[in-house]
Amino acid sequence: MKGDKKYDRAFYIGRFQPYHLGHHNVIRTLIKEVEELIIGVGSAQKSHTITDPFTAGERVMMISKAVSEFNIPFYVIPIEDVEYNSVWVSHVKAMVPPFSVVFSNNPLVERLFYEAGTPVRNLPLFQRKMYSGTEIRRRMIKGDEWESLVPRCVADIIHSIRGVERIRKLAQSDKSEEMQ
Amino acid sequence: MKGDKKYDRAFYIGRFQPYHLGHHNVIRTLIKEVEELIIGVGSAQKSHTITDPFTAGERVMMISKAVSEFNIPFYVIPIEDVEYNSVWVSHVKAMVPPFSVVFSNNPLVERLFYEAGTPVRNLPLFQRKMYSGTEIRRRMIKGDEWESLVPRCVADIIHSIRGVERIRKLAQSDKSEEMQ
Amino acid sequence: MKGDKKYDRAFYIGRFQPYHLGHHNVIRTLIKEVEELIIGVGSAQKSHTITDPFTAGERVMMISKAVSEFNIPFYVIPIEDVEYNSVWVSHVKAMVPPFSVVFSNNPLVERLFYEAGTPVRNLPLFQRKMYSGTEIRRRMIKGDEWESLVPRCVADIIHSIRGVERIRKLAQSDKSEEMQ
Amino acid sequence: MKGDKKYDRAFYIGRFQPYHLGHHNVIRTLIKEVEELIIGVGSAQKSHTITDPFTAGERVMMISKAVSEFNIPFYVIPIEDVEYNSVWVSHVKAMVPPFSVVFSNNPLVERLFYEAGTPVRNLPLFQRKMYSGTEIRRRMIKGDEWESLVPRCVADIIHSIRGVERIRKLAQSDKSEEMQ
Amino acid sequence: MKGDKKYDRAFYIGRFQPYHLGHHNVIRTLIKEVEELIIGVGSAQKSHTITDPFTAGERVMMISKAVSEFNIPFYVIPIEDVEYNSVWVSHVKAMVPPFSVVFSNNPLVERLFYEAGTPVRNLPLFQRKMYSGTEIRRRMIKGDEWESLVPRCVADIIHSIRGVERIRKLAQSDKSEEMQ
Amino acid sequence: MKGDKKYDRAFYIGRFQPYHLGHHNVIRTLIKEVEELIIGVGSAQKSHTITDPFTAGERVMMISKAVSEFNIPFYVIPIEDVEYNSVWVSHVKAMVPPFSVVFSNNPLVERLFYEAGTPVRNLPLFQRKMYSGTEIRRRMIKGDEWESLVPRCVADIIHSIRGVERIRKLAQSDKSEEMQ
Repeated sequence: MKGDKKYDRAFYIGRFQPYHLGHHNVIRTLIKEVEELIIGVGSAQKSHTITDPFTAGERVMMISKAVSEFNIPFYVIPIEDVEYNSVWVSHVKAMVPPFSVVFSNNPLVERLFYEAGTPVRNLPLFQRKMYSGTEIRRRMIKGDEWESLVPRCVADIIHSIRGVERIRKLAQSDKSEEMQ
Repeated sequence: MKGDKKYDRAFYIGRFQPYHLGHHNVIRTLIKEVEELIIGVGSAQKSHTITDPFTAGERVMMISKAVSEFNIPFYVIPIEDVEYNSVWVSHVKAMVPPFSVVFSNNPLVERLFYEAGTPVRNLPLFQRKMYSGTEIRRRMIKGDEWESLVPRCVADIIHSIRGVERIRKLAQSDKSEEMQ
Repeated sequence: MKGDKKYDRAFYIGRFQPYHLGHHNVIRTLIKEVEELIIGVGSAQKSHTITDPFTAGERVMMISKAVSEFNIPFYVIPIEDVEYNSVWVSHVKAMVPPFSVVFSNNPLVERLFYEAGTPVRNLPLFQRKMYSGTEIRRRMIKGDEWESLVPRCVADIIHSIRGVERIRKLAQSDKSEEMQ
Repeated sequence: MKGDKKYDRAFYIGRFQPYHLGHHNVIRTLIKEVEELIIGVGSAQKSHTITDPFTAGERVMMISKAVSEFNIPFYVIPIEDVEYNSVWVSHVKAMVPPFSVVFSNNPLVERLFYEAGTPVRNLPLFQRKMYSGTEIRRRMIKGDEWESLVPRCVADIIHSIRGVERIRKLAQSDKSEEMQ
Repeated sequence: MKGDKKYDRAFYIGRFQPYHLGHHNVIRTLIKEVEELIIGVGSAQKSHTITDPFTAGERVMMISKAVSEFNIPFYVIPIEDVEYNSVWVSHVKAMVPPFSVVFSNNPLVERLFYEAGTPVRNLPLFQRKMYSGTEIRRRMIKGDEWESLVPRCVADIIHSIRGVERIRKLAQSDKSEEMQ
Repeated sequence: MKGDKKYDRAFYIGRFQPYHLGHHNVIRTLIKEVEELIIGVGSAQKSHTITDPFTAGERVMMISKAVSEFNIPFYVIPIEDVEYNSVWVSHVKAMVPPFSVVFSNNPLVERLFYEAGTPVRNLPLFQRKMYSGTEIRRRMIKGDEWESLVPRCVADIIHSIRGVERIRKLAQSDKSEEMQ
């Protein structure tokens, strides 16, 4: 399966709340070195909070539509949290196809794969201040323009699932004293 | 089963740590519109902390005794947290009898039921500053009077289970460095 | 709270798939000795199988409607399985009001409460061959008459939720080779 | 997104232990009616047993390679068991993109989606005796030819991960008395 | 830490329901080759059934008392089931000190460690028909002599916790129709 | 088993991140009163964070090596968190040998055992400011000397597992925006 690129299959993980142009630029760079790319959608069981508004399935669709433009084989796989760091690497390895390298800048992800013997490479970074999930969610809640920070097809999906309405509702200060 | 009231069966959820006159006044109002009331006891698995001192069973007893004065059919059901917002509505629906409306002021609860297609109505509020679980627990810890904020039968139950002694012990600053 | 009956509050657990006249006769006898009755609905998270067709909430409603005729205070509480026998008694005790006796004929339930120091009494039995959940579910699947084995209000609930249609569908031999 | 086909996005679930020509023929038929196909990989957390030898990630790779020949957009998503039928549909919906129809012959899957209001269609069946996971695993254990029952790329993957060696080891009668 | 023995630290796992002379003879042989021994107590969360009557803590005590006669450093560690074979090895590795070899005759244990790259050696077997947990539990239930099949200190512990009374109670045919 | 000491078997729990001279001095005092000591390793499933850097198995090894100098029988048992305070005591009791007293200064631990009817005694404290896991981890991250705060054998183990390298990596400010 390995062609003339450096790695046959690489693993890249994020929360993608939502998938934005920062992620897109990272992947545009990665694909120069990898034959196939596995994209892990972290904290898959989380949704409907102001930091994690979108479901795993919604994020899978955003990523799949956007990455399909790059014309390389790719896999988009939800990864549920396990809250048990020592087994996290084997949990990931069970859920995704075999891979030979991990791309990450997260110290925990780097350390866990390092101790498991999997090579880890750092990611290039693109205008992190601007292309950031935190910034995009802040703009959605405030009612500011955010569409220019994500690929066009991602903006379309967020509109179709009424994602901005969702996050704005969740951001309302709680009118009841205490619950759930 | 539906008589001449607006809703046949309604769902109302809270943590009820403890059940107080604010809750009691809400229910007094709700029962004008509903034939039967389902009361969900949220975070059922939590107890023995300063924000969640009482067990689900203790809370079920407080609520059942207090609500029985209203003379309508009611159900008091513990609801354990699932930490997975997308399945929370179906978890609730599995544990309680069928209902046609939800009463809530909590944005997350409102949004989750809204996306699931269940009608949601907001609750009336009664002197929220005073009738508040936070205020009651604060008074218990400080040794102040709190009994006037809860129905008489609830105060009796809390005394019989030595609830104030429990929360005051839990509020002690930890004498050991670190643990569990 | 204790009046002139033998026990102030008793615990009785079953799966109630569905609640039938055997259970009803047991409770009719128990209430002579207890001031208040706690009914635990076991395997609460199970439903939609041929041995456990009904949800916890459906079972709570069946039991509540039927037991309300006896005119004693009662609690109907779903109990999710924990698959960890050593903690099961404390799980039950967390979810229900305090009780001073358990009524059960199940050796595991008897032993677990015995080791925890809670008194256990055996149940009277009423025509167990006929009044049996297994027999009722068998009749539902075969299309035979089953309504005479349950309280009238329970039959009404099962009809209103289309429970017989559900169990008959689940009993179809699987047309696909293998799944889930 | 909807073009001239009957359904915009359809959901099809199986265990795919392994993906074989029966599944492949089903999908060949489905794609005539659907714009996009979501393939759920059930019991995702299971592997390394004689009935479930392959990991979710191995199955994702088999399916992705085989289905890519059909030239329609598709998603392959691991679905972990939840052991709680009442929440299973919302678990699936959280993990995969939105869909408007389910294709299944499994009575439980059919019933759960039916009660949730999602349309269900039955699958065509192709020589089920021969194209069966059970038969393929039986042949692997016995050392018989099995490659003709799966797409060529699937056989290649199974060989590359030494899948036959794995299932044959697991099928050894246990030499120790009892364990895990 | 490594002295003149073949392995510095070895891992040996069983359910030990109860620990018997077969296990004891295995360990007597193993210690000739290992500096330190880690004994994993599998299915740690199981107890109070006729196949798994004893708690993890009871089994830890049996093993610790018996193995202390061998005068080598050892660790006895409960291992809860994870029902997810792909992460089981990393679960074990998180719970116990580092080891360089596994002793096992269980095909699943052998395969999982083999795929994880840990060397596995087979165990010697000693009169497996007689020294067997199944046989010992059968004798306990029937009221036959079983003490000669376990180390003396293990028989003492089982008597002190009234273990035979427990398993005989659990073996009673259920007097109630169905429960838990 | 009880000799001339005050307690036959005592339970002492901590997180031991890492085991240090404060713990060691506590145990040196305890053993004057107890025949056997059970040491529970709390939050056993946690590792690879800056507050919980070491695995349960690494902590078991540290403790076992250090405590073996005291020449009393002891047990070192990982205790996974259950996030359900009402069942925590029975979880502990399932995992460890029977005990007649608990030594703790933690209000929650004290209260839970008190309500379960187990006697609790407070611990002596030794220079808590200095001998503290927080202080040791702070020194490790800063590159300061920490070895003098732990028993010699514990320092050796931490070096052999490259524990300081691990915690320093985990303490790096995250270079990526957001993840897992």
